[in-house]
Amino acid sequence: MTDFTPTERTQVHRLPKRGAYDRETVYRILDEGLVCHVGFVADGKPVVIPTGYGRKGETLYIHGSTASRMFRALSKGADVCVTVTLVDGLVLARSAFHHSMNYRSVVIFGQATLLEDPAAKREALQVFTEHVAPGRWEEIRQPSVKELQATTVLAIPLQEVSAKVRTGPAIDDEEDYALSVWAGVLPLDLAPQTPLPDERLPQGIAVPEYVRSYSRKAR
Amino acid sequence: MTDFTPTERTQVHRLPKRGAYDRETVYRILDEGLVCHVGFVADGKPVVIPTGYGRKGETLYIHGSTASRMFRALSKGADVCVTVTLVDGLVLARSAFHHSMNYRSVVIFGQATLLEDPAAKREALQVFTEHVAPGRWEEIRQPSVKELQATTVLAIPLQEVSAKVRTGPAIDDEEDYALSVWAGVLPLDLAPQTPLPDERLPQGIAVPEYVRSYSRKAR
Repeated sequence: MTDFTPTERTQVHRLPKRGAYDRETVYRILDEGLVCHVGFVADGKPVVIPTGYGRKGETLYIHGSTASRMFRALSKGADVCVTVTLVDGLVLARSAFHHSMNYRSVVIFGQATLLEDPAAKREALQVFTEHVAPGRWEEIRQPSVKELQATTVLAIPLQEVSAKVRTGPAIDDEEDYALSVWAGVLPLDLAPQTPLPDERLPQGIAVPEYVRSYSRKAR
Repeated sequence: MTDFTPTERTQVHRLPKRGAYDRETVYRILDEGLVCHVGFVADGKPVVIPTGYGRKGETLYIHGSTASRMFRALSKGADVCVTVTLVDGLVLARSAFHHSMNYRSVVIFGQATLLEDPAAKREALQVFTEHVAPGRWEEIRQPSVKELQATTVLAIPLQEVSAKVRTGPAIDDEEDYALSVWAGVLPLDLAPQTPLPDERLPQGIAVPEYVRSYSRKAR
């Protein structure tokens, strides 16, 4: 896979060593995340809306409601910026100044295309479902024709894309290492808790393996 | 505390019962979150950048670098949209169509003000530090005059603000409740893992209580 080519707006200027343009890094972040933040311009002003998404190959899919501002703007081909951020840990340095966070983020610039073909929409809905819970699509009731019509899907090509990654320990000023203050990294993880079965679940239906051993890592 | 007054762009039109405008709900989400997504317009196009933040009273503070596109745009009073999203769980319904997520989000519209007064900047840095780890400010080396000068802080008033919250179980179509598929909610939590002490930490410095029992909840 060839790397993304940095553009004026995807080139990481601040702390350039944190920038990454290879598809493996970008796709791994996108595949681990659950929510993206979609930025668009409405009446000349910025709007940022969180929403679910899915990726297949070189395309990111998002849902939209026909009635929403976001959908109205994006389905007409307005410019969009989609950002996915994973928080990996707190970097607790010896000085306030050097406190930081370990994180991985991806920023995508482009324009969305409205999917109209029912088969393409159906495939995108499969991508959404499998993004959240791999294996689930085959178990559930798949979308009816009416549901497909009621769902609007936007496709955003992964072309103008960059990632930014911070890992590792705090970097303190040399003279601060002697201070008697705890320093280190507190890793954070979006961790699954105990599943809550639906109250109307018929008896004898076990929690599926993909829920019991749920993890966003290494997807 | 009086509620936020919905405006044309903060009124939640889609699924209006998910909208919330009371300060307690909004502040709780902001105080639990670690990263916000800052949206602004550059050359007529949307840009969304993740960054840390802190809140004090009716003001949200973000860091900026003088050299960054974001800082250059925002410090001149450009319109900004700041969004904070917490993912609380996967809502695994019996049909693909009714899959959802439990989440809480806040969207803030406004304009940023550049803090110039050193005392105000210093207070904002305290807010940042205490937002990440309450109690830490008093333990660490606080910012020098030079560090204060190198830090740019933007203040965004919490005036045009709304929250959106989804909680609870999957809502399935009545005829789908008979299906033999597991359904329920898988709660997710940004959970602290084992702290990683810095390699250059002097012996005998214990992990502080606020790190050992770290939680983003009930702040």
